[in-house]
Amino acid sequence: MSHWYEETFHGTRLSLEVTETLFAGKSAFQTVEVFDTKPYGRVLAIDSVFMTSEADEFIYHELLTHPAMLTARDPKRVLVIGGGDGGTVREVLRHPGVEACVMIEIDELVVRASREHLPRIGTAWDDPRLDVRFIDGIDYVKKSDDAPYDVILLDGTDPIGPGEVLFEAEFFEACKRMLTPDGVLGLQSETPMLLRDIFFETQKKLRALFGSVQPYFAGVPLYATGSWSWTWCSDQRDHRSLDDARADALIPGCRYYNRDVHHGAFAQPNYVRQGLAEL
Amino acid sequence: MSHWYEETFHGTRLSLEVTETLFAGKSAFQTVEVFDTKPYGRVLAIDSVFMTSEADEFIYHELLTHPAMLTARDPKRVLVIGGGDGGTVREVLRHPGVEACVMIEIDELVVRASREHLPRIGTAWDDPRLDVRFIDGIDYVKKSDDAPYDVILLDGTDPIGPGEVLFEAEFFEACKRMLTPDGVLGLQSETPMLLRDIFFETQKKLRALFGSVQPYFAGVPLYATGSWSWTWCSDQRDHRSLDDARADALIPGCRYYNRDVHHGAFAQPNYVRQGLAEL
Repeated sequence: MSHWYEETFHGTRLSLEVTETLFAGKSAFQTVEVFDTKPYGRVLAIDSVFMTSEADEFIYHELLTHPAMLTARDPKRVLVIGGGDGGTVREVLRHPGVEACVMIEIDELVVRASREHLPRIGTAWDDPRLDVRFIDGIDYVKKSDDAPYDVILLDGTDPIGPGEVLFEAEFFEACKRMLTPDGVLGLQSETPMLLRDIFFETQKKLRALFGSVQPYFAGVPLYATGSWSWTWCSDQRDHRSLDDARADALIPGCRYYNRDVHHGAFAQPNYVRQGLAEL
Repeated sequence: MSHWYEETFHGTRLSLEVTETLFAGKSAFQTVEVFDTKPYGRVLAIDSVFMTSEADEFIYHELLTHPAMLTARDPKRVLVIGGGDGGTVREVLRHPGVEACVMIEIDELVVRASREHLPRIGTAWDDPRLDVRFIDGIDYVKKSDDAPYDVILLDGTDPIGPGEVLFEAEFFEACKRMLTPDGVLGLQSETPMLLRDIFFETQKKLRALFGSVQPYFAGVPLYATGSWSWTWCSDQRDHRSLDDARADALIPGCRYYNRDVHHGAFAQPNYVRQGLAEL
């Protein structure tokens, strides 16, 4: 007997046909569920919001990771904030030049549920270069004495409720403090279709901090509207300049990302250009 | 009092919060409904499948129309099959060189409901260059003695049930019969995410008929998965060669389409490249 699991978002609702619930738990922070679905394979949901699915996670994780990694200069130290399903660190650790990947996830339960029930997503948990810390990401970037990072990836939830602080100027500023001068920051930056204000306000906050702020776009079926954005930020690097040798080695192992996708994703629809011009 | 209207599609379900039902009718072919929704403004649904919304129709209609129109050589005669909401012919008729646009829509009720309740989508119904005929599109392309068209746009529904014939090789062949030797055919070609087989089979059928067949991609929130595709086909034209003068005149009036979007949309994700290589 299947049932429907639904996420409601600003007058839209996406429901998935669930064939089996694999995990349901509650941490100090949130409810965490993993289930198997008919259309998208196994799915992680947090507080009734879909986080990732086996069917489309490659799009999200490859696009969060590789534009930043392949435009940074020889990234050795990488910081991931959020990303408890393990997909982002998996993509980071596919870059052989990475010496250390620190992942800061506030909620150990997300990682525990994902390790057990989403083994096809998180395939790099045992990589010796990975250092997972269950602490508050905001505290960390504000206060840490750790060496700066060449790439920082923000893999947080929606800026609604507890995730709101992950889209505040103060947090982005603290992230920059932890970035090398020629480092690259990459983040998921929500849908420009139904969260137009948040999308453009986020661009504005980042533009106040970085010399180059470039949103990019692709479809992720699991996320509200299916039209998703990420943003690439750097003071010194160029979002169009891929490291050719590293790109050539990486791309054959990608399911979504390649050079054409990289450049194409940065194309700004006219309504985005106009919104950015008005900031 | 609002309620939710839902479309179910292969184990996924998109629901929209409806604030008012504006029209509900039944033709010999299908049920036709128009309602106002909280997230996407007015929406047209046929047989409980969302067809178009005021909020995102510009993406779909601009991307169906302009890649074909701006790569064809000075298109004067344009045929649209389907497209009863009027969005595609609106975009076609924005091209001043068009002398005749014939629209073949099997169901007069769709046009009647759209003209009355979706006036912000169909703004070109009274253009003297437009010739709307309520006949069967398949019969037309198989049997018509009309002069051939420089551009043909297929704006049909999903290839499930009555729309299935619009994705058959025989239909594509008949469309080619009505196309000038250097004409361009553009069509919506479904989502490659949940209708993978139909997407790739459609590419295969078109490749058997045309020298160049190029799928392209963008997000349309209203359609299942939100990840949509269209396909550009021609024997003699190049999908990368826009008519510069016409593009420069058209693009400032677009909400989505521009040169970067044109070229970026043709980027094939690795899973698409691999699927095409296996055809």
